[in-house]
Amino acid sequence: MSGTRSERLGWLGTGRMGTVMAGALLDGGSDVSVWNRTSSKTAPLVEKGAKAVDSITELAGVDIVFVMVSASADLIKVTTGEGGLLSAERLPQIIVDCSTVSAEASAEVRAAAEAAGVAFLASPISGNPAMVEDGRGAIVASGPRETYDRVVPYLSMIAPTVVHAGPAEQSRLVKICHNLFLGMITQALVEVTTLAEKGGVPKAAFVDFINGSVLGSTFIKHKGRALVERDYTPTFNNKMLRKDFDLGLAAAREMEVPLPVSSMVHQLIQTAIGHGFAEQDYAALYEVEARAAGMLDGDAS
Amino acid sequence: MSGTRSERLGWLGTGRMGTVMAGALLDGGSDVSVWNRTSSKTAPLVEKGAKAVDSITELAGVDIVFVMVSASADLIKVTTGEGGLLSAERLPQIIVDCSTVSAEASAEVRAAAEAAGVAFLASPISGNPAMVEDGRGAIVASGPRETYDRVVPYLSMIAPTVVHAGPAEQSRLVKICHNLFLGMITQALVEVTTLAEKGGVPKAAFVDFINGSVLGSTFIKHKGRALVERDYTPTFNNKMLRKDFDLGLAAAREMEVPLPVSSMVHQLIQTAIGHGFAEQDYAALYEVEARAAGMLDGDAS
Amino acid sequence: MSGTRSERLGWLGTGRMGTVMAGALLDGGSDVSVWNRTSSKTAPLVEKGAKAVDSITELAGVDIVFVMVSASADLIKVTTGEGGLLSAERLPQIIVDCSTVSAEASAEVRAAAEAAGVAFLASPISGNPAMVEDGRGAIVASGPRETYDRVVPYLSMIAPTVVHAGPAEQSRLVKICHNLFLGMITQALVEVTTLAEKGGVPKAAFVDFINGSVLGSTFIKHKGRALVERDYTPTFNNKMLRKDFDLGLAAAREMEVPLPVSSMVHQLIQTAIGHGFAEQDYAALYEVEARAAGMLDGDAS
Amino acid sequence: MSGTRSERLGWLGTGRMGTVMAGALLDGGSDVSVWNRTSSKTAPLVEKGAKAVDSITELAGVDIVFVMVSASADLIKVTTGEGGLLSAERLPQIIVDCSTVSAEASAEVRAAAEAAGVAFLASPISGNPAMVEDGRGAIVASGPRETYDRVVPYLSMIAPTVVHAGPAEQSRLVKICHNLFLGMITQALVEVTTLAEKGGVPKAAFVDFINGSVLGSTFIKHKGRALVERDYTPTFNNKMLRKDFDLGLAAAREMEVPLPVSSMVHQLIQTAIGHGFAEQDYAALYEVEARAAGMLDGDAS
Repeated sequence: MSGTRSERLGWLGTGRMGTVMAGALLDGGSDVSVWNRTSSKTAPLVEKGAKAVDSITELAGVDIVFVMVSASADLIKVTTGEGGLLSAERLPQIIVDCSTVSAEASAEVRAAAEAAGVAFLASPISGNPAMVEDGRGAIVASGPRETYDRVVPYLSMIAPTVVHAGPAEQSRLVKICHNLFLGMITQALVEVTTLAEKGGVPKAAFVDFINGSVLGSTFIKHKGRALVERDYTPTFNNKMLRKDFDLGLAAAREMEVPLPVSSMVHQLIQTAIGHGFAEQDYAALYEVEARAAGMLDGDAS
Repeated sequence: MSGTRSERLGWLGTGRMGTVMAGALLDGGSDVSVWNRTSSKTAPLVEKGAKAVDSITELAGVDIVFVMVSASADLIKVTTGEGGLLSAERLPQIIVDCSTVSAEASAEVRAAAEAAGVAFLASPISGNPAMVEDGRGAIVASGPRETYDRVVPYLSMIAPTVVHAGPAEQSRLVKICHNLFLGMITQALVEVTTLAEKGGVPKAAFVDFINGSVLGSTFIKHKGRALVERDYTPTFNNKMLRKDFDLGLAAAREMEVPLPVSSMVHQLIQTAIGHGFAEQDYAALYEVEARAAGMLDGDAS
Repeated sequence: MSGTRSERLGWLGTGRMGTVMAGALLDGGSDVSVWNRTSSKTAPLVEKGAKAVDSITELAGVDIVFVMVSASADLIKVTTGEGGLLSAERLPQIIVDCSTVSAEASAEVRAAAEAAGVAFLASPISGNPAMVEDGRGAIVASGPRETYDRVVPYLSMIAPTVVHAGPAEQSRLVKICHNLFLGMITQALVEVTTLAEKGGVPKAAFVDFINGSVLGSTFIKHKGRALVERDYTPTFNNKMLRKDFDLGLAAAREMEVPLPVSSMVHQLIQTAIGHGFAEQDYAALYEVEARAAGMLDGDAS
Repeated sequence: MSGTRSERLGWLGTGRMGTVMAGALLDGGSDVSVWNRTSSKTAPLVEKGAKAVDSITELAGVDIVFVMVSASADLIKVTTGEGGLLSAERLPQIIVDCSTVSAEASAEVRAAAEAAGVAFLASPISGNPAMVEDGRGAIVASGPRETYDRVVPYLSMIAPTVVHAGPAEQSRLVKICHNLFLGMITQALVEVTTLAEKGGVPKAAFVDFINGSVLGSTFIKHKGRALVERDYTPTFNNKMLRKDFDLGLAAAREMEVPLPVSSMVHQLIQTAIGHGFAEQDYAALYEVEARAAGMLDGDAS
């Protein structure tokens, strides 16, 4: 793994998450060039030793370029678009996309990159910037095995958990599975919390016990607090979660995998939306459950 | 909290779990008398400073007696039975039951204790002996608040998480909720693992990613391994889990709380039993799912 | 079948339904004695040729006594109770119970009858009095085959459909299955009606089409009208239907038959109760669905 | 209604169903011209008084043309395609499509027709040819109200039930709702039949009772027989039913209507496919249920 440290890296997209991730590469002793649409945002990384470049095509001259942008359209633009990475005279050997984008966009960019002789690794990350900074992120990568093997030392500087999910867009599927799981856990937590609550158990005590047990997780700790406080300030709202369930169930349908609980939770998220919680955090599944249990008079907090 | 240390404690039931728990009280500097049906099993605690007594009624002379037995019938026997705690001349002020028993048995013993002027705290623990020894247990207690307040310093020597769930049998309900939650998480994990697997993702990589993410927990780590290896050596078999779902759904019915996902998982556990997995670990829910997805030919490993 | 006409029949319980049923026996040329707690209610049957008797024990002197009472307790009272059929000096050869009672009550009365040398046939009827009068009832009977064979000519005078479900309490199970089916059909109708309605189809047109199709039934015609008019005047309220689902799912659990849709509908009925529709007709499942679809503001008609 | 009889009608597509339907128009005294790709198939109608024409464009000269073809592509071809109805010099005033096609195809043809000044009525029929011939079909039509009013006398010659579902493609949605309902009824019947069967009730007796009750319908009579005999010769196979559930749930998702039971049945149909019943009749849902109840050893009949 040691030899890889001499490679020159590029980082495209230095928003909050990109800054944390690229910072981890610098902390690991890597040579990193950075570019961002709003160039001033590269300053913190430059202070840490990064070289700021003026254009995407200039960034393309390094060995491996990491991309961290907001959405599918952005990824397509900064790679296959005019002035994008693949339009440069000197191309990188590998593009590593860490953004959360659709499988379709990922496949499109992969095809364009490979046509240009550039390997592509789809490497979305789980966790918010604070968690990643704290060394608690997880990365799932997919693309050719040899590409993965060459990039994994860098990904390991960013997150303690890095796995290889397959040769193509499997990492996108894994992220969708992750979000299906998150939605199901939330509904499950909502059901037992409501049952305990109606049985006279203080919600906070219940959630604390679950978190102190083998079932406890960082996620349940945060989501449990939202249930207790009926605080539905969205980190991820019901419409966003529904979108991931749309994608997950469509993938399951195509692969012919029946998902009984996932499909039921999909309908319950839709029910929450019908009850007026579209723009609120999906912890509002609690409101639907509590109404059904006759515990509320339809007065959403 | 300091003054409480001068109280004399008793420990009834020194099987594997009781030994770990009573050991924690001794480590915390408590004065502990112990009794066990098979008296030789008290030896490790005596080595740590406990005093072995010859009969339950002798144990009854301390201030607080903790009980850790196997089942409802045992609890009833060692408390209200002939030669039981409540038959002693000198009664303890408090009985703390740490066993996992039914709400009915708990209520019966509570009533008998209170009739005799003894306070009763139902305090089941979550976690296996190794975990509790490792400082990762969680205790949920219910009974009068003042009783809880007096006992909590001792419970805190045993487990880092101790919560008060209510004045009566609420802790029993919480344990049932815990197991409903555990069953739902398992089915949820089964669904997404199967989807990822059919999409070409190695099961082990998928489970590792989930565990490295915010959703990861001690439970998922263990259960994920069972799914990957299709190892259904029971820690808790489908019939046992069905029993807890029977109890949970009965409680929900009585309290008029609809539980859509819990009731579906109940039916899926029944389906696993119908497919021949009654005596195997409930991780075998994976087999039902994989068959439904056309991935197996009915060949349970 | 002809020889059977010479048997003397008794009818116990001449409420609205009992009157219609006993009337059919008289219309068929049978010799019928009748008894009712409020004796004036036997008048219409006496006009048709029935003989009114003064006591249950007097009624017991005939060959076959049919019973049509309101509930389990009534059946037990008029058979095994003081002054009941089985306390008479001269006992009938067969008791045919047409009431809708629990399997437990049925088994209890059967055992008592058999101990006294009297055969027992559990023969509940489906349909309301108007329908039965109109020749559209259906009877499901269970008890010894030879008893059934002897009684079937009389049952056939009452209803065009008569089936033998088994040697013991199977007819009670069939009635529960009938009601599970009825609940599921209602929820199914609610779902498609709501979907069509939100898609711009007038509810009445939709229901008319379904009823004109192969799927149409007497039940859907009546229930469809309730959905269209949002008229929840109870014929059978949500609590009654929940009770039948309680029984059906308990039977399924005992027999180890998973019922995914039944158990979901059970939870939806509970949800309707939680939304305040306990005492209204179960057609109010529409309200829960329409609210979930964002079509109502919680304003039940 | 009388004046309408003077209109000249055309019938395009004289397969088995088209022949029955056009025959009903002739029986009603209408003036009908007919065309079919295989011209010999028009003979039975000609015998009844129809005039056979040689081309679609010739047929277009009448006032109202009814179309009964196999699939979406056929409808598009015979209307907007080369030599199709809309390519004729003299156009009809109304096209009535009685085929079962997608909402998209229907909307496309409607737009083309309206652009050419021709009104379009989407009028699918429920029932097979034998039932329609027997006077038990049902038609759901959508299109402009005035067009419907003009055509309804003819539709009423074909089927006793004719409803107007809305101004555009609502009739297509109604047909999908009809099939969702049919799938749910089947699963519901499967569940109660299995429960009764495991409780010792002969399947045939159970199904006969249900059919004799208010819940009975033509559909249940036929499907019940398939369950009893485990005869899965497809009239409509699981893949076809899954397709309709795909469409129905997609429509529900777009309109934001949660469908809990429909979505569960969708997953159960997928499960049947995973168990190897893709090409068999959806009555094979019984096999999935019976296996789950431990009643079969995976031996599909």
